[in-house]
Amino acid sequence: MHAGPPRPYPDPSAPSAPPAPVTVLGLGPMGRALASAFLAAGHPVTVWNRTPGRAGDLPDRGAAVAGSVADAVGAGRVVVACLRDYDAVRAVLEPVAPTRWEGRLLTNLTSGEPARARSMAHWATAHGIRYLDGAILTPTQVVGTAATAVLYSGAHEVHEAVRDTMAAVGGTGTYLGADPGRAAAYEVALLDLFTTSVYGVAHSFALASAEGIAPDDLAPFAIGISGLLSEMIPRFAGQLRTGDYPGERSTIASAATTIAHLIDAATAHGLEVGALTAAKGAADRAVAAGHGPDGLPRLATVLRTGKPAG
Amino acid sequence: MHAGPPRPYPDPSAPSAPPAPVTVLGLGPMGRALASAFLAAGHPVTVWNRTPGRAGDLPDRGAAVAGSVADAVGAGRVVVACLRDYDAVRAVLEPVAPTRWEGRLLTNLTSGEPARARSMAHWATAHGIRYLDGAILTPTQVVGTAATAVLYSGAHEVHEAVRDTMAAVGGTGTYLGADPGRAAAYEVALLDLFTTSVYGVAHSFALASAEGIAPDDLAPFAIGISGLLSEMIPRFAGQLRTGDYPGERSTIASAATTIAHLIDAATAHGLEVGALTAAKGAADRAVAAGHGPDGLPRLATVLRTGKPAG
Ligand SMILES: NC(=O)c1ccc[n+]([C@@H]2O[C@H](COP(=O)([O-])OP(=O)(O)OC[C@H]3O[C@@H](n4cnc5c(N)ncnc54)[C@H](OP(=O)(O)O)[C@@H]3O)[C@@H](O)[C@H]2O)c1
Ligand SMILES: NC(=O)c1ccc[n+]([C@@H]2O[C@H](COP(=O)([O-])OP(=O)(O)OC[C@H]3O[C@@H](n4cnc5c(N)ncnc54)[C@H](OP(=O)(O)O)[C@@H]3O)[C@@H](O)[C@H]2O)c1
Repeated sequence: MHAGPPRPYPDPSAPSAPPAPVTVLGLGPMGRALASAFLAAGHPVTVWNRTPGRAGDLPDRGAAVAGSVADAVGAGRVVVACLRDYDAVRAVLEPVAPTRWEGRLLTNLTSGEPARARSMAHWATAHGIRYLDGAILTPTQVVGTAATAVLYSGAHEVHEAVRDTMAAVGGTGTYLGADPGRAAAYEVALLDLFTTSVYGVAHSFALASAEGIAPDDLAPFAIGISGLLSEMIPRFAGQLRTGDYPGERSTIASAATTIAHLIDAATAHGLEVGALTAAKGAADRAVAAGHGPDGLPRLATVLRTGKPAG
Repeated sequence: MHAGPPRPYPDPSAPSAPPAPVTVLGLGPMGRALASAFLAAGHPVTVWNRTPGRAGDLPDRGAAVAGSVADAVGAGRVVVACLRDYDAVRAVLEPVAPTRWEGRLLTNLTSGEPARARSMAHWATAHGIRYLDGAILTPTQVVGTAATAVLYSGAHEVHEAVRDTMAAVGGTGTYLGADPGRAAAYEVALLDLFTTSVYGVAHSFALASAEGIAPDDLAPFAIGISGLLSEMIPRFAGQLRTGDYPGERSTIASAATTIAHLIDAATAHGLEVGALTAAKGAADRAVAAGHGPDGLPRLATVLRTGKPAG
């Protein structure tokens, strides 16, 4: 019988395999949440963070705290990186000797641009590191529950090799294919929506406060408004697919007028109006192009500056 | 027995009263939806619009089309105005003789700034018009269903006198008190959130498209992101109430870095970045003020330009 290559760790896809050792690099809010979920799922967990003393209760719950990145990498079968950005990941991993990675897999859940994800995958491959890129779409407090949503992209065999381990973060893991930048591409579009909306929430509370409306009085109505988005998003998708933008429910022309009044109201209270001004610019451009009677999804087609960066 | 003042119409609050005649001024998407809901609830409905020929199927369903605003006002007990903005309402109502309003009530569901709502109420009172201001928080397609949400403010007796009639629009009508600007104050804050978020949806689809992601592929994940807002909004309210902004889930410093990368990604595709730049400015200002380790709700406190308009 052929013995096959050495298998330093049990096959984690076998039902009887004990949970694989996991290393988490980065103990910001998300790194801590991930380490906690791996512990809760019974994995041996090693953590490392640039600044010491950020492990919270993880050591008490059984996590080992590595004294160096190299030791941390050596301790895991699956190494999960969750740092500030790709620059931080490169800074942390650059000094680790490639031999440390033998038999190990790197899952990078750090946020960043698709181009950076692709060059990180390239760098990893050049160093013999089996690499998977990922993006976490849900907040820290749901990590480990069924509400978690994570996107993955990169080498299929790496995804297959880490998926049972990554199941500890809970919820849905969606594999988007071999292009390592694909998860990051989805992530930038979704973080764009998240960032802009959260800024809108903050601005809405600030404007309400200026109008003498208490946060708790605004909140239930603001929740109602945010709930409208889930109905609008598929409509945007459908209209963008077909290129037909019927204005029978509401029109860009009406929105342009409304936004002008919002800018007046916010300016009168001394609030910045950069996001509203951007929205007004888009609506005004659409109106000028003859799209005033169209529905709001048409706005997605007027956001090019015509000057792509070099 | 004392006869009391003449009552040209039956008391609509009496259970047996037939539905009161309603006039709708304005046949944009929302005016048409309102007229349709009044018809569906059995009210005699008269409609008027500046540009003729916009009544759609309303005449076939029993609506009378008035030839003049004065005739339209004369035909209703409750006159509902739903026009582009307060300027349009003033332009339409200015020429109507005050005597036409005897025994009638004006409910203005047009969007606009609180100051304009207050001056409109002042103008109405000076002309002997019983006036209620309102704001519709839900889109046209739900008008007439239980999902409708409308805010009202202004004279209590006018709200009492129109509420049974306005029940035809369905859902929840919330009376916010005697200040006629109160409904508009809530509305500007909520439209601020709506506008900024919808712009974020449009921008997200545009960025996804530039990354080669089809609208229908992005949509389910975008719905997931929008769903996070309903959980964040009460947290914003709670932290703004207490003035305590714990960063244990996510921090402004992390967001500032992420937004910088989003701006890079969008700029590389030639997309405008005004809203992201506004969000980055707020995050950077918060970091500079020492709030980098705080949670996102703190952003609502750094949006003042320090230059309130005149
Ligand atoms: N929090 C969330 O809700 C959430 C949700 C989805 C995705 N994410 C993403 O997850 C990643 C981590 O986020 P986070 O919220 O945990 O906090 P974060 O503040 O973005 O990242 C903190 C971690 O990055 C490390 N770090 C920063 N700069 C470094 C450098 N130059 N060299 C080495 N380490 C460096 C920090 O180490 P020190 O402690 O030494 O500074 C810490 O371990 C980010 O890319 C974020 O966008 C977060
Ligand atoms: N649609 C929605 O989903 C929605 C939701 C909540 C609130 N609202 C608010 O409801 C109001 C009406 O909105 P809408 O969507 O129905 O469409 P809109 O385009 O905002 O308003 C159209 C109506 O305003 C009239 N109008 C515009 N300028 C006028 C002027 N100077 N003089 C006389 N009439 C004028 C139009 O008459 P012509 O046909 O002659 O141009 C038409 O009757 C707005 O304030 C809007 O913000 C709308």
